[in-house]
Amino acid sequence: MDQETLMNLLKAVKSGSSSVDEAYETLKELPYKDLGYAKIDNHRELRVGFPEIVYCAGKTPEQVRGIVEYMLQKDCSILGTRASKEVYEAVQNVYEAVEYNETARTITIRKNNIKLTESYIAVVSAGTSDLPVVEEAAVTAEVFGNRVERIVDVGVAGIHRLFNKLDIIRGAKVVIVVAGMEGALASVVGGLVDKPVIAVPTSVGYGANFGGLSALLCMLNSCSSGVSVVNIDNGFGAGYLASMINKL
Amino acid sequence: MDQETLMNLLKAVKSGSSSVDEAYETLKELPYKDLGYAKIDNHRELRVGFPEIVYCAGKTPEQVRGIVEYMLQKDCSILGTRASKEVYEAVQNVYEAVEYNETARTITIRKNNIKLTESYIAVVSAGTSDLPVVEEAAVTAEVFGNRVERIVDVGVAGIHRLFNKLDIIRGAKVVIVVAGMEGALASVVGGLVDKPVIAVPTSVGYGANFGGLSALLCMLNSCSSGVSVVNIDNGFGAGYLASMINKL
Amino acid sequence: MDQETLMNLLKAVKSGSSSVDEAYETLKELPYKDLGYAKIDNHRELRVGFPEIVYCAGKTPEQVRGIVEYMLQKDCSILGTRASKEVYEAVQNVYEAVEYNETARTITIRKNNIKLTESYIAVVSAGTSDLPVVEEAAVTAEVFGNRVERIVDVGVAGIHRLFNKLDIIRGAKVVIVVAGMEGALASVVGGLVDKPVIAVPTSVGYGANFGGLSALLCMLNSCSSGVSVVNIDNGFGAGYLASMINKL
Amino acid sequence: MDQETLMNLLKAVKSGSSSVDEAYETLKELPYKDLGYAKIDNHRELRVGFPEIVYCAGKTPEQVRGIVEYMLQKDCSILGTRASKEVYEAVQNVYEAVEYNETARTITIRKNNIKLTESYIAVVSAGTSDLPVVEEAAVTAEVFGNRVERIVDVGVAGIHRLFNKLDIIRGAKVVIVVAGMEGALASVVGGLVDKPVIAVPTSVGYGANFGGLSALLCMLNSCSSGVSVVNIDNGFGAGYLASMINKL
Amino acid sequence: MDQETLMNLLKAVKSGSSSVDEAYETLKELPYKDLGYAKIDNHRELRVGFPEIVYCAGKTPEQVRGIVEYMLQKDCSILGTRASKEVYEAVQNVYEAVEYNETARTITIRKNNIKLTESYIAVVSAGTSDLPVVEEAAVTAEVFGNRVERIVDVGVAGIHRLFNKLDIIRGAKVVIVVAGMEGALASVVGGLVDKPVIAVPTSVGYGANFGGLSALLCMLNSCSSGVSVVNIDNGFGAGYLASMINKL
Amino acid sequence: MDQETLMNLLKAVKSGSSSVDEAYETLKELPYKDLGYAKIDNHRELRVGFPEIVYCAGKTPEQVRGIVEYMLQKDCSILGTRASKEVYEAVQNVYEAVEYNETARTITIRKNNIKLTESYIAVVSAGTSDLPVVEEAAVTAEVFGNRVERIVDVGVAGIHRLFNKLDIIRGAKVVIVVAGMEGALASVVGGLVDKPVIAVPTSVGYGANFGGLSALLCMLNSCSSGVSVVNIDNGFGAGYLASMINKL
Amino acid sequence: MDQETLMNLLKAVKSGSSSVDEAYETLKELPYKDLGYAKIDNHRELRVGFPEIVYCAGKTPEQVRGIVEYMLQKDCSILGTRASKEVYEAVQNVYEAVEYNETARTITIRKNNIKLTESYIAVVSAGTSDLPVVEEAAVTAEVFGNRVERIVDVGVAGIHRLFNKLDIIRGAKVVIVVAGMEGALASVVGGLVDKPVIAVPTSVGYGANFGGLSALLCMLNSCSSGVSVVNIDNGFGAGYLASMINKL
Amino acid sequence: MDQETLMNLLKAVKSGSSSVDEAYETLKELPYKDLGYAKIDNHRELRVGFPEIVYCAGKTPEQVRGIVEYMLQKDCSILGTRASKEVYEAVQNVYEAVEYNETARTITIRKNNIKLTESYIAVVSAGTSDLPVVEEAAVTAEVFGNRVERIVDVGVAGIHRLFNKLDIIRGAKVVIVVAGMEGALASVVGGLVDKPVIAVPTSVGYGANFGGLSALLCMLNSCSSGVSVVNIDNGFGAGYLASMINKL
Repeated sequence: MDQETLMNLLKAVKSGSSSVDEAYETLKELPYKDLGYAKIDNHRELRVGFPEIVYCAGKTPEQVRGIVEYMLQKDCSILGTRASKEVYEAVQNVYEAVEYNETARTITIRKNNIKLTESYIAVVSAGTSDLPVVEEAAVTAEVFGNRVERIVDVGVAGIHRLFNKLDIIRGAKVVIVVAGMEGALASVVGGLVDKPVIAVPTSVGYGANFGGLSALLCMLNSCSSGVSVVNIDNGFGAGYLASMINKL
Repeated sequence: MDQETLMNLLKAVKSGSSSVDEAYETLKELPYKDLGYAKIDNHRELRVGFPEIVYCAGKTPEQVRGIVEYMLQKDCSILGTRASKEVYEAVQNVYEAVEYNETARTITIRKNNIKLTESYIAVVSAGTSDLPVVEEAAVTAEVFGNRVERIVDVGVAGIHRLFNKLDIIRGAKVVIVVAGMEGALASVVGGLVDKPVIAVPTSVGYGANFGGLSALLCMLNSCSSGVSVVNIDNGFGAGYLASMINKL
Repeated sequence: MDQETLMNLLKAVKSGSSSVDEAYETLKELPYKDLGYAKIDNHRELRVGFPEIVYCAGKTPEQVRGIVEYMLQKDCSILGTRASKEVYEAVQNVYEAVEYNETARTITIRKNNIKLTESYIAVVSAGTSDLPVVEEAAVTAEVFGNRVERIVDVGVAGIHRLFNKLDIIRGAKVVIVVAGMEGALASVVGGLVDKPVIAVPTSVGYGANFGGLSALLCMLNSCSSGVSVVNIDNGFGAGYLASMINKL
Repeated sequence: MDQETLMNLLKAVKSGSSSVDEAYETLKELPYKDLGYAKIDNHRELRVGFPEIVYCAGKTPEQVRGIVEYMLQKDCSILGTRASKEVYEAVQNVYEAVEYNETARTITIRKNNIKLTESYIAVVSAGTSDLPVVEEAAVTAEVFGNRVERIVDVGVAGIHRLFNKLDIIRGAKVVIVVAGMEGALASVVGGLVDKPVIAVPTSVGYGANFGGLSALLCMLNSCSSGVSVVNIDNGFGAGYLASMINKL
Repeated sequence: MDQETLMNLLKAVKSGSSSVDEAYETLKELPYKDLGYAKIDNHRELRVGFPEIVYCAGKTPEQVRGIVEYMLQKDCSILGTRASKEVYEAVQNVYEAVEYNETARTITIRKNNIKLTESYIAVVSAGTSDLPVVEEAAVTAEVFGNRVERIVDVGVAGIHRLFNKLDIIRGAKVVIVVAGMEGALASVVGGLVDKPVIAVPTSVGYGANFGGLSALLCMLNSCSSGVSVVNIDNGFGAGYLASMINKL
Repeated sequence: MDQETLMNLLKAVKSGSSSVDEAYETLKELPYKDLGYAKIDNHRELRVGFPEIVYCAGKTPEQVRGIVEYMLQKDCSILGTRASKEVYEAVQNVYEAVEYNETARTITIRKNNIKLTESYIAVVSAGTSDLPVVEEAAVTAEVFGNRVERIVDVGVAGIHRLFNKLDIIRGAKVVIVVAGMEGALASVVGGLVDKPVIAVPTSVGYGANFGGLSALLCMLNSCSSGVSVVNIDNGFGAGYLASMINKL
Repeated sequence: MDQETLMNLLKAVKSGSSSVDEAYETLKELPYKDLGYAKIDNHRELRVGFPEIVYCAGKTPEQVRGIVEYMLQKDCSILGTRASKEVYEAVQNVYEAVEYNETARTITIRKNNIKLTESYIAVVSAGTSDLPVVEEAAVTAEVFGNRVERIVDVGVAGIHRLFNKLDIIRGAKVVIVVAGMEGALASVVGGLVDKPVIAVPTSVGYGANFGGLSALLCMLNSCSSGVSVVNIDNGFGAGYLASMINKL
Repeated sequence: MDQETLMNLLKAVKSGSSSVDEAYETLKELPYKDLGYAKIDNHRELRVGFPEIVYCAGKTPEQVRGIVEYMLQKDCSILGTRASKEVYEAVQNVYEAVEYNETARTITIRKNNIKLTESYIAVVSAGTSDLPVVEEAAVTAEVFGNRVERIVDVGVAGIHRLFNKLDIIRGAKVVIVVAGMEGALASVVGGLVDKPVIAVPTSVGYGANFGGLSALLCMLNSCSSGVSVVNIDNGFGAGYLASMINKL
């Protein structure tokens, strides 16, 4: 609730155009819809500038369908992440045109004709096994109206593959680097570009990878400036943040 | 080495204005100055848009003085981080007007008259003990020409203090959140603003804080979107990245 | 064995109303029933004020049924936690009216007509995926005769949802906060109420969540006073302790 | 800001006894005093029922003195924790009668004549080395007006010492258990009393103690119900929470 | 190869009753049988006083059967640990009378009539879920000819159950304590008996148990003297060591 | 791109035998083949001396088949590691003579008649359960043309088995030691040979093994000189490095 | 309190030779002396067969002196562990003949003429830096009347040094193995002797030693049977347990 | 003891040129010198091809001097690592010409005129703070007679500095990469050379570096083949192993 709204409300009370009780209700009833198992944030698009996201992991297909059903009334775009095939099928029942990206594990409903940004986000990844996280990041950024360039399989073990794509990477306004195992790609890219780099460690690897810990620590300790890190496998978070920055 | 430079060099070889040997030397000799114990990157300002940084921890006062002395010839601004009083005094010998921020542990030499940005960076912190990291972030951002607003001691234990400052925080183009202990402030701020949030966990705390691990994990697992994380106590990294984003 | 019992026993020995051997047996034979695979504590209700609990994880359905069968003779209420559907069905064979809460994974047999407390326990949770732990806590508290208010899906990413429910939370005598991921909700609630807060970290999340470690450390390092923590996903423990406090 | 205050403010606006601007200022200016390096919460005693606490670690003696000086105007009691001798001496300059508990590392200024509670808090500890944490907990509880019984050096290695004190422990309304090394005392006490047990792991020990991790994990995994845990060495937190519960 | 054997061999060489080549072969060919996938130690019973053990985890049923088949020629007792039902059935094909203890996951073939020891080993455990480890320890000790007393479900949450069995525990020559969760039982028993206590942490528990880490650290940090620890869930190791000590 | 190539290219530009654009393309287009989901490194055999490796984990059978199909055109040997049976069958469709080593989980296509090295690599392992890693290391080394000697099941619990094989181990040019559990074998072998020892910790074990962490730390802390370590279960890495050293 | 004492007390009550109150006092007043900061266990020698131990770490020299002073009245032997020079000097004031072992950091007061055991304890160690732990173990065992053989600096990097001492090690009734770094010595010794092996990991090492974690995990995962582990650097614990076993 | 020696000894026994007792003594008395606090391995140069090393950490200056004094009789070169200035001065008393490298913390006594190898070892490092480890590695390799090339301060944040030195690195027979923080340099170098790479993680860094853990995990998970890892800060180990490989 920003200053202006509050001032207006107080003025309405003063002028009598709003009663004390009405004003109290307005101040108390913050704007969301309660479905029982979830509270949907009606004003979110307004507040943070983007449509609602459904994190499907840990929700039943029925719960996801219910949430989507409610949202459809508002005619906004919807992005569901970590969506299993079962979730996709449940949503298809209420909105047939929903898209499913099997690699990214996302469902998307695009309602408004978003014009893509001029500037683009580069999503760079180390290996083939990082693709699900790459796709989650890219799909997220695209749903939010960003142009995205994917540059995959350019890990540091064969660094010339990366250099060959350097022009594209340097042309981006913000760069997402997705890497598992030792996660060194983030530091190398961070040293070569003068743009914000969002590093996404992945759980790709085995043994002393410890579920992504190695890449996570590597990226947090990057000696390259301009690198920040999101959670392991958090492609969505990286795509969302990149979109924020790309649209500044 | 970007495309244009390479094309020009090749054309010079072709036209004879550059000999093969000269071109080879140019291609081979990448641009830095070797002081023996350190390699100084002459073209860095050009390449990544900013002056050289000296990370003073693990360097002797003499080494830092030597590096600064060399840089002074280039007439650029200099920022030294993690600088002890001894380092400061050593640098004073070669440049008397160097500034020392004791809280931030930074030395700064400002050569060029930087015009500050219109938009500003908000640096928000949870408690008094986080001040050194706050200052490192703020000084870094300022040296790079950014306007900075500090909002300190607004931890979640007394959340009304945060709400009172919300207008200032929301007015920023990018927000740095500095917090130790449980690091919850990053998530709370992340849920209240629609700007990129750079979270800096600090090692402030004791016991199950494990040297900043608690705040680090908390921030990486933030349920608020738009939050990314840098290393524990890495005020410099946050300030540098915030500057990059603020100047987009 | 408290002072009075001991004194009485000694007096009985002195007066001859109890033989030395009888007294020895009484002192030696502490009060429990041995089923072979488990020792049931007959005097527990007396001793700690509550009926017996069966922790079903790691027990076969047959073992749980056997334990319940024995307890039924005593006409006390029974709460089984971490109960699979198989366990529920096995118990149904010996007590048809047993209730099963699938979300909470609890079985409950209510024998005595417990009058609910006036004061209530608030169970507050961050997200939909925390519901199983919420329910385990709430069902436990209810079985022990407490009034419970559930306030779910009020995580800090959309903190206005929490503020809207603040009156209900502040009205409670003790508050349970259930949260996974970064677990920041416990600190925020702890800063807003002046009641004991029992924080339950959950294993909800992925990546650097490390099975609930992030929420656990966050809660242990809470900068809000009045917050204590139980084991990850330990809804029962929180409900039990809250009941203890609510009944003081 | 509770419902009543808000309603009254709105009524004042309506009736004209408060202007819109005044009301806005009241709503915006939440109640604290800004000292620059710290924000002091004037209404805290009102809000959470207790006087202000100063956590001295990470603050300079001058900062602590400044904070205390300001508070003295309000004539409330003050508790400073983790206070070094230097901090104590700095505070003595502005308030000579300040008390210093060297073991607890606390400074206390008692302004109001607090009547102690009837019911008491038992602080039970395993070994001599746990005394600093015991004292921090006990002093905290006492400053808040609670009667405290200390039962020290009753670790499980000689469990008969504990049993001898059981009557005192069972007579308490809430029990604090302080233990390092394996921290088993919390479980044993938790199994013997039917009162809330607040377990405080300490960093006492060596080797695989890992700075208190062993006691922390032990206490979190307690098989006794009614046990919750605060941070390692957090005597203050335990004393504060115990006071809350004791006063219910 | 002990001193006597070596002396005799050298004398045989000197006297000519053994050729140099023969002696070389004897010295070189240390005593084991090579099955290709495993080397069976023929002289083990002689060398360490006990029959061969087969650790079945990570071996195919066929490999276990092959090893057992070879051993049967030597007419010694055999103990297989971590044996699945499939392993048991494979061994049954070559030795029908093999016994299978489903709880302990052991297969045993008893060839020689072992007279049980006078003195006994007490195996004490905290909860019902620890039974598999209890049984592995007990079966191991029994196969090696020890009398064993099992005292189960006497965890510290209801410590009177333990005290009731104290006479049996104190009568043992060596005590094995099996406990998961917080593992406090080892310290309590260690403080009550003056016999060697072998503590076996189990992986029973959840959350901050971290696969048995909590019990392991608790036991390693035991403040009771005379307690040593084996690996998590290592019932076999405890039974073997207890047998060694019991037979001293 | 080495010096000679670069000089020749520049000379060609100067002489006109290569246009500026052609040279630019050559300099820019580094040598690999892009299959969309993977970039295949054509010049790798030239550059690092060995054929291409396919790490099959995290790739679909179809992706592996596609990669192999492309490589077959180049008539080089191929090694696929971490290959499931499904992967093997998919590759069989495009190259029937592909070999599958079920224990090592490798697929191999041998195109050129490699003459084995005179010197050999010893692969020494502690137990039967380490065989998959042993085989992965050995197969890798063999595919690269090395003679390999396997010495398995010589763990330190029966150290005489190791001594019996010492001649073979000492005869090797480089030694790979594969061990799980406590991984002590690497130190013992390292103390007995004067050759480089490559230690491979395995995840074999349970409990405080923590997925191979115990063996990993043990090997990293080896008091024997000449020992270096690769990732847990990384038989391929050890075999590859051993081949490099063996061929020096 | 054992059965016989209890029976006698009850009989005394019955016969009138003890009043009910006297009996109650006896039953309640368990046997220890309370010094305020410590409870000294008078009956400990009786109960667990050995004199009292003073763990000096975390106690002031004055506290230790006070404890010793009290004990001297009882004419028993005293062992103080982790004793600094200051502690030693404080104790010298009340008992001049106290011995100080600087390496072991122990103070010892031998009152009774203990006849050493026939059988002996072997204390085996890997390196020179492990000597403090070796000495703590050996001194402890000696104070309790055991013959001790020290075999130092026989780490696995030069395993022939160990083999040369094998006769002495095998002649012991129980073996203590002290080792830091990778701790492999425990497994090697465990495989060569058929006696109980008590493994003591030490914090000797650096880097991935993590304060003794590497040796601890190595020893817990020992593939040799008959090995159990005490805390990192816990020489006292090993010596105490070894004495227990040696005297069986 | 190798085959030939054993055969000869046995022949000597047979022929009578050696008595049984003499042979027994020879077989038993393995070759080392016992100084009491350390066992010096006389035959080590013979056995592993190099002179004796003294690891000075954890040894008193007197102990080091004693060890060096003994070794000087044998006229071999000596390398002391982790040597403080005090150790250096103590050794100077017995051998004035001893060299001290303050950065590497090594003392060296060069007795024999070692001819340096043709082939060389490249020691590559990321930053100035890694120099102590670089020097320890380089000095070690040089003492063992290897030519060494140091390439320092070529971290991945400015990767062009590395590329400029690639020719020197590729010319080496074996490469040591020393890096702290994220340790990415090892992977980058490993992908650019076809020589064995020995990676040395350093403890340089702060925060989530966790004492070198980040670089260690990064290097262990390297996606580049041919990379193996030694302990954190273990420059000696890397230099020793590199020397072994360089001399093959």
